[in-house]
Amino acid sequence: MGSLGKTAIMYALSDGELEESIKADAEKNGYKMIKGKVGSMSTEKIFAAVETAAQREGLIRKDYYRDTHALYHAILDAFIGICRGQLGLGNMLRTVGLIFTVVRGPRNAGEHEDGEWLAVVLYGTIGAPIKGYEHETIGLGLNHL
Amino acid sequence: MGSLGKTAIMYALSDGELEESIKADAEKNGYKMIKGKVGSMSTEKIFAAVETAAQREGLIRKDYYRDTHALYHAILDAFIGICRGQLGLGNMLRTVGLIFTVVRGPRNAGEHEDGEWLAVVLYGTIGAPIKGYEHETIGLGLNHL
Amino acid sequence: MGSLGKTAIMYALSDGELEESIKADAEKNGYKMIKGKVGSMSTEKIFAAVETAAQREGLIRKDYYRDTHALYHAILDAFIGICRGQLGLGNMLRTVGLIFTVVRGPRNAGEHEDGEWLAVVLYGTIGAPIKGYEHETIGLGLNHL
Amino acid sequence: MGSLGKTAIMYALSDGELEESIKADAEKNGYKMIKGKVGSMSTEKIFAAVETAAQREGLIRKDYYRDTHALYHAILDAFIGICRGQLGLGNMLRTVGLIFTVVRGPRNAGEHEDGEWLAVVLYGTIGAPIKGYEHETIGLGLNHL
Amino acid sequence: MGSLGKTAIMYALSDGELEESIKADAEKNGYKMIKGKVGSMSTEKIFAAVETAAQREGLIRKDYYRDTHALYHAILDAFIGICRGQLGLGNMLRTVGLIFTVVRGPRNAGEHEDGEWLAVVLYGTIGAPIKGYEHETIGLGLNHL
Amino acid sequence: MGSLGKTAIMYALSDGELEESIKADAEKNGYKMIKGKVGSMSTEKIFAAVETAAQREGLIRKDYYRDTHALYHAILDAFIGICRGQLGLGNMLRTVGLIFTVVRGPRNAGEHEDGEWLAVVLYGTIGAPIKGYEHETIGLGLNHL
Repeated sequence: MGSLGKTAIMYALSDGELEESIKADAEKNGYKMIKGKVGSMSTEKIFAAVETAAQREGLIRKDYYRDTHALYHAILDAFIGICRGQLGLGNMLRTVGLIFTVVRGPRNAGEHEDGEWLAVVLYGTIGAPIKGYEHETIGLGLNHL
Repeated sequence: MGSLGKTAIMYALSDGELEESIKADAEKNGYKMIKGKVGSMSTEKIFAAVETAAQREGLIRKDYYRDTHALYHAILDAFIGICRGQLGLGNMLRTVGLIFTVVRGPRNAGEHEDGEWLAVVLYGTIGAPIKGYEHETIGLGLNHL
Repeated sequence: MGSLGKTAIMYALSDGELEESIKADAEKNGYKMIKGKVGSMSTEKIFAAVETAAQREGLIRKDYYRDTHALYHAILDAFIGICRGQLGLGNMLRTVGLIFTVVRGPRNAGEHEDGEWLAVVLYGTIGAPIKGYEHETIGLGLNHL
Repeated sequence: MGSLGKTAIMYALSDGELEESIKADAEKNGYKMIKGKVGSMSTEKIFAAVETAAQREGLIRKDYYRDTHALYHAILDAFIGICRGQLGLGNMLRTVGLIFTVVRGPRNAGEHEDGEWLAVVLYGTIGAPIKGYEHETIGLGLNHL
Repeated sequence: MGSLGKTAIMYALSDGELEESIKADAEKNGYKMIKGKVGSMSTEKIFAAVETAAQREGLIRKDYYRDTHALYHAILDAFIGICRGQLGLGNMLRTVGLIFTVVRGPRNAGEHEDGEWLAVVLYGTIGAPIKGYEHETIGLGLNHL
Repeated sequence: MGSLGKTAIMYALSDGELEESIKADAEKNGYKMIKGKVGSMSTEKIFAAVETAAQREGLIRKDYYRDTHALYHAILDAFIGICRGQLGLGNMLRTVGLIFTVVRGPRNAGEHEDGEWLAVVLYGTIGAPIKGYEHETIGLGLNHL
């Protein structure tokens, strides 16, 4: 058991002990993972927050464009799930408050012959720039590294 | 604790005892929920499977178009997350194997003043029509009922 | 008074005496116009119905690809308004019942220096393939001829 | 006679006595309606102008997110019709000058069993930021309230 | 030999003697053509650079909106090819360095009965705002004039 | 000199001696490349033709999903350039006649430290299903392998 996407989703949705246990189990299976927070009306800040964290924590190599390329498209795919149809935040008068996770490893725990993949999850709320005028949203992007 | 979208996601990703405990907790909080499976290369079969199940199990009223309208757009939003950018399955030479959940209730457990909402989650794999040539994907759609 | 798009919309939405008076006024201003009906779950049938009618009634020249090209993109733009975000009908489990109008003439009545333009209006209902489970929708496409 | 979408379109396209008579007829049928103007190269200003007017005039309740949610998606659907394919104004070097109407009531006059719906119409011109370098455009969004 | 789109692509991809020979051959066939460069994170600057050059060099008439309209949609179509799915540059944390060409003439050299068309090619690199973190991209838009 | 995308475009647009010389030069630089033809009103046939040819000629490994995944997204990106905005062929009453090339190698000839990439070019005509009622179109997709 233990797949890349599910691990990234569960890690994003959990906290406290459950979060720690998901992380510990996944790391035993060879997954590397990070978690962060970003809230913004600017699409580029969402991209930048995830990219910066993934590079800083060593999930992708900074010196190889191909790693950045793989991550960029995983973030974009996740962001499309967040926006559901029309890409945009502040320009469409809406804002997001998101938790993000990035997980690196095999598509399924233990299957190493297909190489390493990246999963990006964005999870949180999207809505009007008024407290409480928002609902939940999630996006998942996967890419081969 | 307990929000509509998270409940629908966790219910989709769990099985066995965890699934039952998520359902029992959610139902105590006034949520109604269903879970099903659909695999297809036809987009319309995904829509039909979720609509039919939600009507049959009484999550929406069959005789009111407004309920069907709310559900339709929640399914569409979830399906956009699955497709990430370009709507299509078999016509784009790809197929999906999905678990779906539909949950009905308040946006946040206990907050009844904003009325009832629907959450639709589609979770599973998308890929080539060859076993194992696929990766995970998720979509969440929320709408007011 | 009298602009190309408004003429096409008003002609699509009217019937009886009002329809006749809109047509008579517009024709005095040098506009050519047709009106038809098409209902389908197939996107290509909507395109074909409008193209065929416009060619048959002489609104565009059959022997010049440029005229067909201009009309095609006007239909597509109108159809995007009908679909609002994701192009598709039966493949998305929805159907349309539409009135269409095509109007040819100057962008504004009396202004001939900018040449001839085409307006396509699609107006009717979109919804589930169940009688009454539908709501109104409109699309307008304009192009230079 | 008298449907929600058609009422919103006719109200947007008319002025003077015709406008007043459309409004008077619609209000007799239980429709509430507003009309305004907005011109901008900023997408968010279009959204804000319609939202603010609809809240101020009492077409939606300010204190319920579900009403704001319904309105938001009706505006977005109308705006997609305006943009025909790619959402954007100034960022794509184009601008709009629009009349907007918002109408609240049953989908069809006299049919109250399906509850209240919202229609948003945006109608005007789209084009280059040069006077006269523009053509007409319309969008209609409907949503259940 | 000699078609409008191919001429615009070859002219964009060549330099030195080859570029001059492509231009000379095309001009003999009645094509008018320009070439320029633009790099930016702002979508509107790409549109503006191509529009300005085409007007200044006389490929389209400045005083007729229909020419501007034809060019605008050719640029937009080319730009969609550059962006592949989601329109945006800096707002999506990416930048482009592009060569553009605009060619005016018949769809195929020597076929004058179908009138004049415009081809716009954008060719260059798209990627992160870091030198070398980019890959090639091309877009072609054609429209009848 | 010699970049991946330009090689794939030039190879698609050339024939006879020029085609052979482009291929010979590119192969000296370590590029692998194939060229084929496909005409269809079915989107899936375009995808299938390119995938099958690339696997058969050994440009990607058949037994590794990651290679198929990389190729799929390169084809999809190229196909978006062909369709310019709305994915679809026969369902939108249009057809394509395309030459395709797939090239594998470094992003720039001689730069091996960033690994291998794939470029897919689709080039040909798109239009009505009537001979000659069509214009040129091109799409380029690049992905890391």
